[in-house]
Amino acid sequence: MKAFMDKDFLLSTDTAKELYAACKDEPIFDWHCHLSPKEIWEDKTPRDLTELLLGGDHYKWSLMRNYGVAEELITGGADPYDKFAAFAEALSAAVGNPIYHWTHLELKTYFGIETPLSPKTAKEIWDKANAVIAGGGMSPRSLIKNSGVVALCTTDDPADSLEYHKLIAGDESFDVKVVPAFRPDKALACGAKTFMPWLAAMEYETGDKITTYAELKKVLVKRMDFFMAMGTVATDHAFLSAPFRRAEENELEEIFTKAKKGAALTDCEIEKYQTELIRFLASEYKKRGWVMELHIGALRNNNTALFAELGPDTGFDIPDDGSNIRKLAALLDSMYRDGALPKTVLFPLDPAENLSFEAVTRCFQDPGARGWVQTGAAWWYNDHINGIRAMLKNKCDVGVLGTFVGMVTDSRSFLSYTRHDYFRRILCDLVGNIVENGEYPADLETLSGLVRGVSFRNAEVYFGL
Amino acid sequence: MKAFMDKDFLLSTDTAKELYAACKDEPIFDWHCHLSPKEIWEDKTPRDLTELLLGGDHYKWSLMRNYGVAEELITGGADPYDKFAAFAEALSAAVGNPIYHWTHLELKTYFGIETPLSPKTAKEIWDKANAVIAGGGMSPRSLIKNSGVVALCTTDDPADSLEYHKLIAGDESFDVKVVPAFRPDKALACGAKTFMPWLAAMEYETGDKITTYAELKKVLVKRMDFFMAMGTVATDHAFLSAPFRRAEENELEEIFTKAKKGAALTDCEIEKYQTELIRFLASEYKKRGWVMELHIGALRNNNTALFAELGPDTGFDIPDDGSNIRKLAALLDSMYRDGALPKTVLFPLDPAENLSFEAVTRCFQDPGARGWVQTGAAWWYNDHINGIRAMLKNKCDVGVLGTFVGMVTDSRSFLSYTRHDYFRRILCDLVGNIVENGEYPADLETLSGLVRGVSFRNAEVYFGL
Amino acid sequence: MKAFMDKDFLLSTDTAKELYAACKDEPIFDWHCHLSPKEIWEDKTPRDLTELLLGGDHYKWSLMRNYGVAEELITGGADPYDKFAAFAEALSAAVGNPIYHWTHLELKTYFGIETPLSPKTAKEIWDKANAVIAGGGMSPRSLIKNSGVVALCTTDDPADSLEYHKLIAGDESFDVKVVPAFRPDKALACGAKTFMPWLAAMEYETGDKITTYAELKKVLVKRMDFFMAMGTVATDHAFLSAPFRRAEENELEEIFTKAKKGAALTDCEIEKYQTELIRFLASEYKKRGWVMELHIGALRNNNTALFAELGPDTGFDIPDDGSNIRKLAALLDSMYRDGALPKTVLFPLDPAENLSFEAVTRCFQDPGARGWVQTGAAWWYNDHINGIRAMLKNKCDVGVLGTFVGMVTDSRSFLSYTRHDYFRRILCDLVGNIVENGEYPADLETLSGLVRGVSFRNAEVYFGL
Repeated sequence: MKAFMDKDFLLSTDTAKELYAACKDEPIFDWHCHLSPKEIWEDKTPRDLTELLLGGDHYKWSLMRNYGVAEELITGGADPYDKFAAFAEALSAAVGNPIYHWTHLELKTYFGIETPLSPKTAKEIWDKANAVIAGGGMSPRSLIKNSGVVALCTTDDPADSLEYHKLIAGDESFDVKVVPAFRPDKALACGAKTFMPWLAAMEYETGDKITTYAELKKVLVKRMDFFMAMGTVATDHAFLSAPFRRAEENELEEIFTKAKKGAALTDCEIEKYQTELIRFLASEYKKRGWVMELHIGALRNNNTALFAELGPDTGFDIPDDGSNIRKLAALLDSMYRDGALPKTVLFPLDPAENLSFEAVTRCFQDPGARGWVQTGAAWWYNDHINGIRAMLKNKCDVGVLGTFVGMVTDSRSFLSYTRHDYFRRILCDLVGNIVENGEYPADLETLSGLVRGVSFRNAEVYFGL
Repeated sequence: MKAFMDKDFLLSTDTAKELYAACKDEPIFDWHCHLSPKEIWEDKTPRDLTELLLGGDHYKWSLMRNYGVAEELITGGADPYDKFAAFAEALSAAVGNPIYHWTHLELKTYFGIETPLSPKTAKEIWDKANAVIAGGGMSPRSLIKNSGVVALCTTDDPADSLEYHKLIAGDESFDVKVVPAFRPDKALACGAKTFMPWLAAMEYETGDKITTYAELKKVLVKRMDFFMAMGTVATDHAFLSAPFRRAEENELEEIFTKAKKGAALTDCEIEKYQTELIRFLASEYKKRGWVMELHIGALRNNNTALFAELGPDTGFDIPDDGSNIRKLAALLDSMYRDGALPKTVLFPLDPAENLSFEAVTRCFQDPGARGWVQTGAAWWYNDHINGIRAMLKNKCDVGVLGTFVGMVTDSRSFLSYTRHDYFRRILCDLVGNIVENGEYPADLETLSGLVRGVSFRNAEVYFGL
Repeated sequence: MKAFMDKDFLLSTDTAKELYAACKDEPIFDWHCHLSPKEIWEDKTPRDLTELLLGGDHYKWSLMRNYGVAEELITGGADPYDKFAAFAEALSAAVGNPIYHWTHLELKTYFGIETPLSPKTAKEIWDKANAVIAGGGMSPRSLIKNSGVVALCTTDDPADSLEYHKLIAGDESFDVKVVPAFRPDKALACGAKTFMPWLAAMEYETGDKITTYAELKKVLVKRMDFFMAMGTVATDHAFLSAPFRRAEENELEEIFTKAKKGAALTDCEIEKYQTELIRFLASEYKKRGWVMELHIGALRNNNTALFAELGPDTGFDIPDDGSNIRKLAALLDSMYRDGALPKTVLFPLDPAENLSFEAVTRCFQDPGARGWVQTGAAWWYNDHINGIRAMLKNKCDVGVLGTFVGMVTDSRSFLSYTRHDYFRRILCDLVGNIVENGEYPADLETLSGLVRGVSFRNAEVYFGL
């Protein structure tokens, strides 16, 4: 029996251990996360373990809800220790869940705590961890720095002033590169309630009027130039399903005008608008060498009552089970035909689509970069041992593992960098098994380079960091 | 090499064996099956092994058909031994099939036969098993009792008189709880040929007239009260795909009137009717503390020629491969908003939907029970080693294993209780591997409680047995 | 650690090794491939390793593109060695990819080269392999013969003259059966640009006029008789999705007339035409004892710019992720009802549909052959270790492994017969694991027969070779 989460955690062969030794100390470039630049700038020490471990982390909230914990102890006003104790009990029942591993990696890495968390040990761990927090070194910047992060991309709206990015960039005492990623989801959401306020925010931020679709594009270009100046290398987009319905410029103007008037748009109009706007944006990304990330398939805010109460990103999103590949392929093709397909990372949320997404990358390659179009790391509902393995196996089966730009935390938590370690262990174990099974030569030099590449270097080159 | 199906069958580690020792003798609460209350009441000894092993079991019939066995030897009038011999030959070719394991577990558990069944051994086993049957103790009640069953839920139509349930309940010599589960599929099937006869049966059974949708609901409530008095704790519903199309009461009355006249309904009308009726039923289940089971995705009676000859449930149903999650999420949300979402167990038939179904449970929890909404055990086409593992892994990955209400046979056969043993072995092996891989502490006390919970106790609490 | 791809490659247990020993020397009946009869007839020695290994093989091209190799070095005019060197580099990064294994099996089997291919060894291997080629014995017929092939089915259009088949059949010096498979895809593609030229080719080849749908059917029957005389036992059809929309003869005549005029057909018209034509063809196949192969789910030519440049089958096809089972079940049912369902092999491309496809086979069996309707070997994007295992497990889980007609190369390359060896190893390893885990008795006699059957004999009987 292997010891519980010791130094060889998830490493089942000697080859796996050797490969892990070769990549474990690679730096981290976390090119997709949801950290708050404001919190990084302010760099406040958290109040207690509950704030640090459970604050804003809807993965953990969902786990507690599934165990039958009352909302008061999750997002409500209950006593912080009671929340932590409720989490400890729920976690004990979550055998095999990645949160079990993440939590213990976090306790070990940042607090030196190796005792398994359970109802019996909750108080002891609470006290010990809070003493560590009180002792300092647990502020956002310390956690980022001590995790070996050399660069990270936050996700930012085009209307964002990026004021905190400016402040962070100007602070010479903090040498981690914190750059904004351009996420124009609100620009694409022409049918949503957020559209008009977002247009207003854009007008406010830029001082420009946006009365036509053409003007919208002009202002978006201006913001891209601004983001570029701030160091942007990546973009992000969330689509429930891939849009593809072509339209002419005049029709887009009509749709825009209709949206501006607050009239309800048809699904068809929304799809036309989204198709052409993402095509336009892609062409601009290509010019700048930016990477286009597409996160496809999250069906959001399914509990409308709790959405009204708690807002978005609180644990009520799920993977859609629909069909995306025909439209996605057509969309990428239309960009490629125009010479306007940027480097692209595709993130399917439904694992039943892993294969078709991996396959579609083969259709739109460009010698400008290895893996010009590629699938991204196992995401959200797939970010666990089985999901990461499935994603990596899929890449082995029909893609080229060695070009992979690897892991991102996609997280709101400053403790989440241990997920890179989790990923690296699973990667090395998988490659180790392939070697130990005689399916690849035991050429450790080549393979060490490969796992180092997937851990860090491939992303560094691909994004042009 | 492990010995063939010995005491350590499916248990690959010491931890797995320890966990299995902790839960193997837990009682069985088979909260979803298709046993006949009439047969339980009558308690007849079967004629021979063919009747007991192959009678009514369309899983085995399908296996024989796939091997090229003629229908005469399956559902036809051939000699019982010839049928058994044909089954033995087909089974030998079905390496890895769960029926291979079920059959051998059944032969071992109920007949003390450990010889592998093959064309060579068929006659010897036939003779030995028939001698055991002749020796007594193989009637339905004996089999149920000797299998450690303390309670079971049959599935019963609202129009059913439950006369055999009454008889069984009144018989003090049989202390197993046999309670009806409420299955109003024919009430929901407003577009089907069965609808008018079913309404007539309801009118006959209750003495009430059902001329309007409002009256239908009233009569259904009356039957729910009757079932409640008979001990019902669970309900069941089969949907090809989850319905969600809201309608007002007056529209439902129009649809009902149209259906009563025998006019063809549109798909849209059927969906509206089903949406609102299941919403109404759910609210009534919630009031009674009943569990709502939803079996989603069986495409039935695909061979229309053999359906005409053999009727339903004879081996011609398959998993649909469609998309359910958007409507299912919307349906559950609409119930939740109204405070009318009962405890719910979701059974997807298409394993490609396992993840989205598991994820949607996270959106609609209630501290009234652990796992208020949860996914059910691997069902039908997934009820085999790989399918059970996949389902359990999925629950580990994104859910909380410790709240799971576990296995049901879903069977028409009195021999099928060995499937609980099969399930418990796979469960313990999976948890054992997690521990042996260092992914959970070797805390056998906690984990023994967990596997006992999943084997029996969680269901006992959840259903309020 | 197992040695790299040695004699025990992919065989992880003693039972697996014994089973492999029992089937490894079975002959090969490659009943579905895309070899060129012309090339078999001409039997030219290849110019060099690049022509032999990379010529026409779009699997390898895709791998190179994903690694960032320029098209010039793939399908372009670059120096042959430079192409090979580029391939060697890309391959080294493709850890776990089946092309890694296929390439090394090919180098070992046909060239006696056991050195792993990498940028460092590329030159050495290039020289050695080209010397072997120059030494003779590497022409198509030699490769086929030396691979143990006793029969193979090429895929041929009804309009094909089969002149090379005639020549091959008439050549007594070559005793491998090379028979055409009937692939009427262009007959079914009534909405495509290829339809009119294809009709013209049919008229030219047969000397008949095709002015009506009835005449088309008559001419197709004539061609089937011709193919029959040429030894045909199999047919093939590629559908993006299964068609099912019934139509009367007069409507089909209207659609045909419209198509002949070059008018655009609606999707509905195309589906009606395809439904009825495949139904007609199936009834004719049944009369002749032919096997109907259905390859479902390839979304083709996704990169329209490169399709225009390079043509079809150059690496730009992907698995669709849609829903097929309802229509497929209805189509097979309609054939079965009419007593006109031939032996059928179903090939789903989307692995998310493996289960529903396997399940549908259970609905339409016929004692005329074991596995009358069955799923085919893991295909294209599934033709790798994980995909083959998944397909076999699926067959074990809900089907009957022992009736399986096994592997086909589906290839354009004369080196691809090693894929049968690859498949047999994975098959034996899977069965070996089932035995070693105590899930089937260690009855090596029965199991040796089973793996030999799946390797060769089942197909021999099923196709009536």
